[in-house]
Amino acid sequence: MTTYRPRPDDVRVLLNTVLDAPARLSALAPFAEVDEALQAQVLDEAGKFVAEVIAPPNRDGDEIGCRLVDGEVRTPPGFRAAYRAFVDGGWPALSAAPEDGGQGLPAVLEAVLYEWLSAANHGLTMAPGLLHGAYECIRHHGSDELKRQYLSKIATGEWLATMCLTEAHAGSDLGQVRTRATAQADGSFRVAGGKIFISGGEHDLTDNIVHLVLCRLPDAPAGPKGLSLVLVPKRLPDGTRNAVLCERIEEKMGLHGSPTCVMRFDDATGWLIGEPNRGLAAMFVMMNAARLHVALQGLGLLDAAWQKADAYAHERRQMRAPGPAPGGEAADLVAEHPAIRRILDTQRAWVDGGRLIAYRTAVQLDVARHDADPKVRERAQRWCALVTPVLKAACTQQAFHGASECLQVFGGHGYVREWGIEQVVRDARVTMIYEGTNEIQAIDLLVRKVLPDGGAGMSALLVEVRDELDAARDIDADVQRRLAQLRYLTTTLAMAAAAEPALPYEVADDYLRVVMIALLAWAWARIGREAPQDARWAAPEAAFRRWVLPEFEMRLGIVKRACEAVTAQRAPA
Amino acid sequence: MTTYRPRPDDVRVLLNTVLDAPARLSALAPFAEVDEALQAQVLDEAGKFVAEVIAPPNRDGDEIGCRLVDGEVRTPPGFRAAYRAFVDGGWPALSAAPEDGGQGLPAVLEAVLYEWLSAANHGLTMAPGLLHGAYECIRHHGSDELKRQYLSKIATGEWLATMCLTEAHAGSDLGQVRTRATAQADGSFRVAGGKIFISGGEHDLTDNIVHLVLCRLPDAPAGPKGLSLVLVPKRLPDGTRNAVLCERIEEKMGLHGSPTCVMRFDDATGWLIGEPNRGLAAMFVMMNAARLHVALQGLGLLDAAWQKADAYAHERRQMRAPGPAPGGEAADLVAEHPAIRRILDTQRAWVDGGRLIAYRTAVQLDVARHDADPKVRERAQRWCALVTPVLKAACTQQAFHGASECLQVFGGHGYVREWGIEQVVRDARVTMIYEGTNEIQAIDLLVRKVLPDGGAGMSALLVEVRDELDAARDIDADVQRRLAQLRYLTTTLAMAAAAEPALPYEVADDYLRVVMIALLAWAWARIGREAPQDARWAAPEAAFRRWVLPEFEMRLGIVKRACEAVTAQRAPA
Repeated sequence: MTTYRPRPDDVRVLLNTVLDAPARLSALAPFAEVDEALQAQVLDEAGKFVAEVIAPPNRDGDEIGCRLVDGEVRTPPGFRAAYRAFVDGGWPALSAAPEDGGQGLPAVLEAVLYEWLSAANHGLTMAPGLLHGAYECIRHHGSDELKRQYLSKIATGEWLATMCLTEAHAGSDLGQVRTRATAQADGSFRVAGGKIFISGGEHDLTDNIVHLVLCRLPDAPAGPKGLSLVLVPKRLPDGTRNAVLCERIEEKMGLHGSPTCVMRFDDATGWLIGEPNRGLAAMFVMMNAARLHVALQGLGLLDAAWQKADAYAHERRQMRAPGPAPGGEAADLVAEHPAIRRILDTQRAWVDGGRLIAYRTAVQLDVARHDADPKVRERAQRWCALVTPVLKAACTQQAFHGASECLQVFGGHGYVREWGIEQVVRDARVTMIYEGTNEIQAIDLLVRKVLPDGGAGMSALLVEVRDELDAARDIDADVQRRLAQLRYLTTTLAMAAAAEPALPYEVADDYLRVVMIALLAWAWARIGREAPQDARWAAPEAAFRRWVLPEFEMRLGIVKRACEAVTAQRAPA
Repeated sequence: MTTYRPRPDDVRVLLNTVLDAPARLSALAPFAEVDEALQAQVLDEAGKFVAEVIAPPNRDGDEIGCRLVDGEVRTPPGFRAAYRAFVDGGWPALSAAPEDGGQGLPAVLEAVLYEWLSAANHGLTMAPGLLHGAYECIRHHGSDELKRQYLSKIATGEWLATMCLTEAHAGSDLGQVRTRATAQADGSFRVAGGKIFISGGEHDLTDNIVHLVLCRLPDAPAGPKGLSLVLVPKRLPDGTRNAVLCERIEEKMGLHGSPTCVMRFDDATGWLIGEPNRGLAAMFVMMNAARLHVALQGLGLLDAAWQKADAYAHERRQMRAPGPAPGGEAADLVAEHPAIRRILDTQRAWVDGGRLIAYRTAVQLDVARHDADPKVRERAQRWCALVTPVLKAACTQQAFHGASECLQVFGGHGYVREWGIEQVVRDARVTMIYEGTNEIQAIDLLVRKVLPDGGAGMSALLVEVRDELDAARDIDADVQRRLAQLRYLTTTLAMAAAAEPALPYEVADDYLRVVMIALLAWAWARIGREAPQDARWAAPEAAFRRWVLPEFEMRLGIVKRACEAVTAQRAPA
C-alpha cells in the first residue's frame, strides 16, 4: 500500500512560477526576510516530515481507531509519537508570532503544510487542526491573563484546543445553544451543559486540552446574539482536573483516528473570552480561517486518492486497451485504458486547479493582514470572503466524489481495505459536513456575500481575474467570455432575487458551482501559460477543458432559467 | 432509526397505470392466469414480508458482520432465521418453473421483490441474489443428472449457489483465469485453484453451497475461449465434505452482512456444465440477468436512503427557511429548506424514473422468453441488451451519489452510525463495481452493442419510445426532440468511430449518460401524463426537469465535440 508522499516541486510550480508568491510575500513587512530559498527549504522539510512521520500511522488510525477507557481517550498506535515529533519540530507554530514562540512564517506555507498533513493522515491532523484558530481567537479577544497562561502553550502545540459549538438539539443552528455559564465572585464562570461532535474533546496527545465553549449567560437574549465564549481547560491552572468529561466517542463512517466526543460540563470552571453575548463574533474568527483549511483538506485527500490510484494503474495489468497491442504482455496497464486515464487526469485537474485558487486565497490572507495599503488589504479581504466558501464546498465535494472515482480504478480491490483507498473515501465524506455544511457555504456565498451589494463585490473580483488573462490567447479569451457571462448572471440574479427572496436559496448551489468552474478555468488558463510545457501539466489541462468545464454552461443554464421563471411570473399579463 | 418499508402503491402506479404490465403479462401463455389481482396480492405480501422479516437484522449485518471461525462462516445474528422464513415463504422460487418447485410468476415480480430485498438488507440479499441465475444456468446447460440433483434444491433456495470467476491476478479480465479442471475416469472433474471475491462462498444459511466455477481444461486454448464451467458442491451427493474451503473473508468498505470469500479448490470434485471451453457462454446467461438485478439494487438502496432522509427531514427542525415564518416553532423543519427539498425530490426523480425503465426491462425479459411472435421477442431482446448496461451503470452510480446526498440531509448526524444512513452509502458503493464495473458497462453498451450495427438497433429503440409520446404535449415534444438529437449523435459517433477506433472508449461513459437521461426524460413524460396528478408525482417530475435533465445537453456536447475533433483531424488540409 502506498502512503502519501508530498511533492514540493508540484506546489512550487503553482506558488512560485504561476502565483509569484515569494516576491508578493517578501514585499510584506513581517516577511521581508522570508525569501524564495527559505520558503523552498520549509516546503522540502515539511514534505519529508509528513511522508516519514505523519503518513505511516494513518492505517492504524483507521483500523484500530480511538478508544474511550474509563473516561480517557486512547489515540491509535503511533499517534502520540508522531504528534510529539510534530511539536518538537516546531510545525504547529509555523505562522504564529515569534513573541508567542512561533516562527512568524506566512499563512500560505501553513496552508500547504496542513494540506499535506491531511492528505497523509486526516485523523491525526484533526488534533492540531484547530490550534491556529484558537490561537488567533485568544490573541484577539482574550484578556492579558488568559493570553499569558494559554497563548504560547497553544501556539507551540504543547496544549491542544477544541471548539465546543454543537449541541444535540442544535446542529448548524447555533442560536439554539443552551449550555449555561454563570459568573462567579472571583471573575470566573461556571459552565454547565452538554456538547456533541467535539473533535479531540478528550485524548492522550497533550497534558491539557483547552476548550472554547459557546454558552449563554443567565440574562442573555435568546438566539445567536445571546451567545458568549468561555475558555474551559481540562486542567485548571493549579493542575487539578476541571469538571469536564468525555461521555462517549461516536462511531463514524470514517476519520476513526480522530475522537469525536460527546462532552459534559458539570459546573466546570472557565473564563470569558471577549465581551458577553459577543461569543459568535469571537468564534467566527476561528471558523473563517478553518474553512480554507477544510478546502485544503479536501484537495489533500483527493491528491492522496490520486497518488494511490495512479500507482496502482501503473502496476496492474487488465485486458487490452484500444490501439496497437505492444508485444510481450498478455494485458495492458490499467493506466492505458481511456476510462482510467480520464479519471486520473480529471482528479489531477481538480487538485492542481483547486490548489492554485486555494494558495492564492492563503496569500491573500497574508496580504489582508499585512499589506501597507488599506485598499489592497480590503481587496484581499474581499477575495477571501467570496472565494473561501466556494473552495470549501467545491473542493470537499470533489474530495469525496473524486476519491470514489479513484477507488473505481482498483475495481473490486478498491472496495476491500487492502489498498487503503476506501479509507480515503470514508474519511473525505466528513469534510462536506463540518465547518458549515456545503449547503450552508452556498447560502453564505450568495445570500450573505454576493447579493447584499447587488453583486458589485463579486463583479469586481471577476474583473480582477479577467485582467490577469491575455486576450490574445484563444484559451484566455474563452475564459474571459465566461467570466463576463458570470458577471451578467450575477446581475440578473440580484434583480430576480429582489422580486423573489426565496430564489437565491434554490439556486445557491448551482451559483457556487458556476463560480468554482469559472475560477478553475482562470486557474488553468494561467497554469497552461506559465507552468512548464510538458505532459505533467498538459494532461490535466486537457482533462479540465474536456470533462470539467462543460459543467459551467450546464449550471449557468440552470440559474438563468430559474431567474427567467421569476421574471415571467412577475411580468404583467 | 427507520428501517426500510416497501410501498407497493408506488410500484403499482408505475407497473399498472403507466406500463400496463398486468395486461401485457397475462397475454403471455405461461402467465394467462396471472391477473392484476394476483399480482397485487404478491406485491402486498412481499412488501409486508420484506419490512417485517428482512429489514430488521440489517443493522446487525453491518455492525457485527460475518466471521470466519475454523473455516466456517457465521452470518450475523438474525440472518439464518430471516433466510429460513424467506425459503419457507416460497420467495426464492417466485419465477422458477412449477415443475422445478417454483411458482412460475413473471420475472418482473421477482425484479420488484429483489429491489425491495436489497433496499431492506443488501447484505442478506446477496445470498439468494445468484439463485435465479444459477437456476437458469443449470436448467439450460446442465446434464439431466445435474438437473435432477440440483435444480429444485436451487429453485427453492434450500441450497444456495455462487459464481466463482475472479482470481487474484485477473479481476474483470476472465481470459486470464488459471484454475484447472482435469477429467476423471468416472466422468467427474478434479478442480484445483484459487478464487477471490466470492460472495457467499461459505456461510451457515444452508447445508450445501453449489459453486459454479470457471476453469480451464488441460488442453484448453489460451484466453477467454478456453474456459469451462464446472459445478462444485460444498457437500458431495453422498453427504461428505468436498475439498473446497474458505481461506479468508475480506474486510470491506461495507456490505458486511455478506461474506466475500477467498476460496481454495484442492482437487475438489465437480461436474462439467455445458460444453468444454464454452463456460463463458454458459456463465453469461447468469451475468446478463444479474446486471438488471444490480441496477434494481441501486434503485432499492437509493429508495432506502431517501426514506431515511425524508423521515429525518420531517422530524428535525433547523434554522429558518426562506418565506413567511410560521408561528410557534423557533426553527423550520429541515424538509422546508430549498436545498434539502432539492436533494429529496431529485433522488425521488431517479428512483421513480429509474424504476419505470427497469420494470419495463423486466417485462421485456418476460416478453423475450414467452411471446408467441418471434419479431416481438427479438425487439424485447434488443431492449434488454441495450438498456441493461445503461441501467446498471447509471442506477448504481446514483445509488452511491444520491445516498451520499441523503446523508447530507442529516448534517453531522449522517456521518455517525446512529441513523444508519452512512451504511447505505458504504453498502451502495460496491454496486458500481461488481457484475462488471460501470466503465465496462459503458464499453459494453457502445462498443459491443451500439456500434457493431452502426447504431441501427439503438436508433430503432429510440423510435419505439418516441412513438409512445404525444407530440401535442409540449413536454413530450421536447423529449422527442432530444431523442432525435440522440439518434443523430449515435450516427455521428458511428462514423467518427470508423475513422478513429479509440474514440468510443473515450466517450463511452458520456454516451451511456446521454442515453440514461433521454430514457429518464421519456419515463417522466409518461409518468407525468399517466400517474395521479398530485404532489407525490409532480414534485419529482419538476426536480427531474430542473436538475437532472440539464445533464443531457452537457454530455451530448462532450460526445459531439469529441467526434468533431476526430473529423477535423482527418479532414484534408
